[in-house]
Amino acid sequence: MRIASLLTNGRPFLGVRTPTGDAFVDVSSLLESAPRELGAYLRAPKSEREAIERIVRDAPERSRISVKDVTYRPLLSAGSKVLCLGLNYVDHANESPYDPPKYPVLFARFATSFVGHEQPIVRPTLSSHFDYEAELVVFIGRAGRNIPRERALEHVAGYSLMNDGSIRDYQMRTPQWTIGKNFDRTGSLGPELVTPDELPEGAHGLRIRGLLNAKVMQEANTADMIFGVAHTIALLSEALTLEVGDAIAMGTPGGVGFVRKPPVFLSPGDVFEVEVERVGTLHNRVVDESELAKS
Amino acid sequence: MRIASLLTNGRPFLGVRTPTGDAFVDVSSLLESAPRELGAYLRAPKSEREAIERIVRDAPERSRISVKDVTYRPLLSAGSKVLCLGLNYVDHANESPYDPPKYPVLFARFATSFVGHEQPIVRPTLSSHFDYEAELVVFIGRAGRNIPRERALEHVAGYSLMNDGSIRDYQMRTPQWTIGKNFDRTGSLGPELVTPDELPEGAHGLRIRGLLNAKVMQEANTADMIFGVAHTIALLSEALTLEVGDAIAMGTPGGVGFVRKPPVFLSPGDVFEVEVERVGTLHNRVVDESELAKS
Repeated sequence: MRIASLLTNGRPFLGVRTPTGDAFVDVSSLLESAPRELGAYLRAPKSEREAIERIVRDAPERSRISVKDVTYRPLLSAGSKVLCLGLNYVDHANESPYDPPKYPVLFARFATSFVGHEQPIVRPTLSSHFDYEAELVVFIGRAGRNIPRERALEHVAGYSLMNDGSIRDYQMRTPQWTIGKNFDRTGSLGPELVTPDELPEGAHGLRIRGLLNAKVMQEANTADMIFGVAHTIALLSEALTLEVGDAIAMGTPGGVGFVRKPPVFLSPGDVFEVEVERVGTLHNRVVDESELAKS
Repeated sequence: MRIASLLTNGRPFLGVRTPTGDAFVDVSSLLESAPRELGAYLRAPKSEREAIERIVRDAPERSRISVKDVTYRPLLSAGSKVLCLGLNYVDHANESPYDPPKYPVLFARFATSFVGHEQPIVRPTLSSHFDYEAELVVFIGRAGRNIPRERALEHVAGYSLMNDGSIRDYQMRTPQWTIGKNFDRTGSLGPELVTPDELPEGAHGLRIRGLLNAKVMQEANTADMIFGVAHTIALLSEALTLEVGDAIAMGTPGGVGFVRKPPVFLSPGDVFEVEVERVGTLHNRVVDESELAKS
């Protein structure tokens, strides 16, 4: 199942992709009490989630909204954590100023730093060092602390994609990357949650690519991750409670812009795409902050 | 005004301190529609906040709940950011392995890492390197981006206190401090929001102390902060939107445990207090994670 937080004519709704893929079932139109965003859906009782599955299966034609008529909201869950791994692909760790990690390198992104699929990402006025990072994202569907690695995948609600867009000069200005990772609307998250039954276990062995204006800038396989999905969930949950709706961004492969010679940064008009085999494609155009203010 | 997120007999309510200080007015008992936690209060329309102020002024005796009968929830706002400054006092920067910052050093804490005033903070099973950090906290009352420094204090809802409890070996295990700053229930936030009218402008010039079992371990003045409140709001808001309910922890003075010779770490039974003149005292006892599981 593929689930998204959407808008149509300004109205928020929870959408589930139709089997043909060219439309979303508007769950809210069929069940008034249904949640209108992914986080609320994930936190709903199992019986309610199952009811939604049934409704979607038998959804009448009139409840379908064409993909052309929806706006994607960032696939976030109000109040949830967005945990991001750094340096989790060996080729990226090697191109960076850091050693490959022996323990997950963790930082946070806030909701204010994200837009949804097909929404513009924003190059800020303060910096031209706007870089891209293609990533696989895991959503937590069952809360837990001290989750054993062999049971970790039972806590996964599904997978999605992130452009962990980064303002590099600010990221490197202090020992902590947080500010450079949290400029408003510099990242994107979506398009939709893909449930684990559609993918290999732990989303392992999938090609991941980052494309700038259709040119491949990053290419790797999720099997190249230093800490895989189950291992990451086990390690992080030794420290903190993973809650329903939390997202874990699994890090980016080599090929990012700031280490290239000459460096490559995102400019207004550029399109960056994050692609993971069988998960989908997250597509965003770059605008300048000044341009956004005018619109 | 002093506002807290409280429980009495398991029921959540918004409390406002009585002038004598030994009780809270149970706002919810006087106004059914009133918010039951600080974040919702801060986000309420101005007319509703003013109505609450009036109600509190004329509150009848029966609406008062003794401080002895309340449980403090962590002073958090669901869905809000907790932005933390590192190395923001020169003496602490000098005792740390880092240089004093020329730009704010920022990291994040998640809600799962906090308890309220008088609730036990938890030394995790995984580490004995549990350290304390006394801090002043600022809450945002009006959202903004690119807030000019000279207008920054208009965006402050009030001040409170934090123990930015840190698991030092995990904090230093990777270049990013996030995991060591986010073990479950290792920090505390409260007791209450103190509105700016009760304090000097920008909470400037106040004595700040951290006490371990009543012994002064940290002592400084908020005037010693490298980035003061207005300056911090201006700089952070150049990058990201500050939202109503967001908290900014202003960093800790020198005297933390891990740089002492020999190092000092928190042990079960210890009491740590964060004290800022005219703001109040945040008091927490330390328990071991194993102890917590039994209770």
